[in-house]
Amino acid sequence: MNFKELAAKYDTPLYVYDFNHFTEQFNKLKKSFKARKSIIAYAVKANSNLSVINHFAKLGSGADCVSIGEVKRALLAGVDKYKIIFSGVGKRDDEIKEALKSDILMLNIESEAELKRIEEIAKQLGKVARISIRVNPNIDPKTHPYISTGLHENKFGVDIETAKKLYLYAKKSEFLNPIGIHFHIGSQLTELEPIKEASQIVADLVRSLKAVNIDIKFFDVGGGLGIRYKDEKLIEPYDYAQAILSTLSGLDVTIICEPGRFLVGNGGWFLTKVLYEKENGDKRFVIVDGAMNDLIRPSLYNAYHKVEVLTDNKEMSKANLVGPVCESGDFFAKNVDLPKTNPGDLVVIHSAGAYGFTMSSNYNTRPRAAEIAVMDEKDRLIRRRETFEDLIACEIDYLKE
Amino acid sequence: MNFKELAAKYDTPLYVYDFNHFTEQFNKLKKSFKARKSIIAYAVKANSNLSVINHFAKLGSGADCVSIGEVKRALLAGVDKYKIIFSGVGKRDDEIKEALKSDILMLNIESEAELKRIEEIAKQLGKVARISIRVNPNIDPKTHPYISTGLHENKFGVDIETAKKLYLYAKKSEFLNPIGIHFHIGSQLTELEPIKEASQIVADLVRSLKAVNIDIKFFDVGGGLGIRYKDEKLIEPYDYAQAILSTLSGLDVTIICEPGRFLVGNGGWFLTKVLYEKENGDKRFVIVDGAMNDLIRPSLYNAYHKVEVLTDNKEMSKANLVGPVCESGDFFAKNVDLPKTNPGDLVVIHSAGAYGFTMSSNYNTRPRAAEIAVMDEKDRLIRRRETFEDLIACEIDYLKE
Repeated sequence: MNFKELAAKYDTPLYVYDFNHFTEQFNKLKKSFKARKSIIAYAVKANSNLSVINHFAKLGSGADCVSIGEVKRALLAGVDKYKIIFSGVGKRDDEIKEALKSDILMLNIESEAELKRIEEIAKQLGKVARISIRVNPNIDPKTHPYISTGLHENKFGVDIETAKKLYLYAKKSEFLNPIGIHFHIGSQLTELEPIKEASQIVADLVRSLKAVNIDIKFFDVGGGLGIRYKDEKLIEPYDYAQAILSTLSGLDVTIICEPGRFLVGNGGWFLTKVLYEKENGDKRFVIVDGAMNDLIRPSLYNAYHKVEVLTDNKEMSKANLVGPVCESGDFFAKNVDLPKTNPGDLVVIHSAGAYGFTMSSNYNTRPRAAEIAVMDEKDRLIRRRETFEDLIACEIDYLKE
Repeated sequence: MNFKELAAKYDTPLYVYDFNHFTEQFNKLKKSFKARKSIIAYAVKANSNLSVINHFAKLGSGADCVSIGEVKRALLAGVDKYKIIFSGVGKRDDEIKEALKSDILMLNIESEAELKRIEEIAKQLGKVARISIRVNPNIDPKTHPYISTGLHENKFGVDIETAKKLYLYAKKSEFLNPIGIHFHIGSQLTELEPIKEASQIVADLVRSLKAVNIDIKFFDVGGGLGIRYKDEKLIEPYDYAQAILSTLSGLDVTIICEPGRFLVGNGGWFLTKVLYEKENGDKRFVIVDGAMNDLIRPSLYNAYHKVEVLTDNKEMSKANLVGPVCESGDFFAKNVDLPKTNPGDLVVIHSAGAYGFTMSSNYNTRPRAAEIAVMDEKDRLIRRRETFEDLIACEIDYLKE
């Protein structure tokens, strides 16, 4: 990647994505599951740019969506509707209605109340809602508390007993068709054992459902494959797939896998330019034109992102890399070795392809960054930089002087 | 406030602001400084809606801005340009240029490198840049580390010795006019002593500058007056003003005060509706249609916001109040007493007027909420709810199928 050229062409702050890397990751995962029918359903929330989704759609990807907005993005970007899943713990009525009308593969259900609500809305529409139920297997994924989701103390899914009850209910309803089962124990998984354990629990549930003539067609193992931000131990996709497949003997199911971070995380960079250096007491600060509104993961999760200054200067010392936002929480890295910089030096923040732009805001009235795609050495804009006019577009008509 | 009526009229999630409360807070603070010339410069970053800024402008408020976007908002909303200050640790060249052309009161400078840059740009434009320098008095404000800003370990301002040097430099420059001095030790201050101590240090600096014929006209004490989220001890504006005024004997300065949270924090509410209740193991969850993308303070700072369910049901038990976003970090309150709810019940999240909407994002492709103003019992929209089309507006032209 010629970051300097890209920054000169598109200005900073800037998100850059390597679509070839996305392809590689997708194919690696797809191949790992080749022993079975499988759908790789890209988790749109990781990076929901239309062109990113479109790229995966062209590779044959489905889409895991958590709002009707994401479903619309997926449809607009060309994902086949029979590969789209609508998940999430809180779906509004209008979202359920629109999803049922869109005839997507299935709605993934996270509570009894939601099941009944979907049945009611399906009835109103004279439709049969295809559903899966998210089972919470109560497995500790050993990841950050904010991104762990498979314990009872989390809001996600229902426990095994409730799941059974709901499947029996759905089986009897003329407006519900239970075709799938889902679990997802967390993001950025770096250990194999928890995923295997969870898969075993859910596979056993599928078997017991089969015994009462509930025929689960889709075994949705969620996402959660980790990526390397720093020096994390990683799970190999092949081993991951084997761990899951080993729990499925005797079951004729299509595996659905919902990777987000794994597909896009390490194929994205956030580019930002040095504005100034300053020292306060014995603290050194390198101030750049990107900020927490652009990439909030360091502030929100204390997440590590490798930072790299593109300079020939080798004079290193400890520094905080910070943005212009008026909060001490606005930082990209703290107390890291950075070379002496000059205004205009380019800083590359690595592993920014997932949960970067999608979480960005206009805090401090900062326009959101542009996004570009690089494929086969060609670069193109996939989201233009916001202007001041964009930021006030929903307000200006209501300003009475 | 008739929250139910407002929610029915404008739908949820919704931000509601009480402009009469804003007025009261503004007048209370203005009155506290009446012994001196003063400018109350509203800190736009707290709530940057154009109509909110316009409301303060009509009360005679100035504006404390931290980006050129905020300066533009202030000008557009009718703030007098000679009451606008442009602060922030990282100003880009184009921001400095535009600010100088706009002829605002002054640019607040946070580093030597920035001072030189501003001088250079002023020279290019053939202008004299009015400036203030932000002094970092190294005082611990005793608040949350993310919102404390007055210690050397923070990125803000310059130390006293550096400040002196920069003032002498500015005095000699034909393109710089040092007219102000600034300090701000943190947000949500609840103790008087740190502010007095900081003010004393800075006032002494003003005196020593006077001795070398540098005449500081504007004594900018920053913001930071706290509000009550839960049971915080508060500083009374009068006591706050007295603490500052007591340090200024012999100085003929206009006081600039930059309140944000104090003016708008407790005059804002976030309204959200219950979608479902669910229990996982022995954990109870109340799921609402608002989420961390709408109000990130609980996730980001572990901030407390009082939550209130508008229901007659008195059957209380512990619950987590959570949103539909697919993260365990998506919560408004954890382990609080909540009445049993029904779908559609309205939940009021208090003290959401500051750092609520301004920090909101489109995470999970969720449109940002609408904002409404209530004044003299009349309500009106001041920002319309985003649509799906708004969310993809910067992307759709680049989607190649």
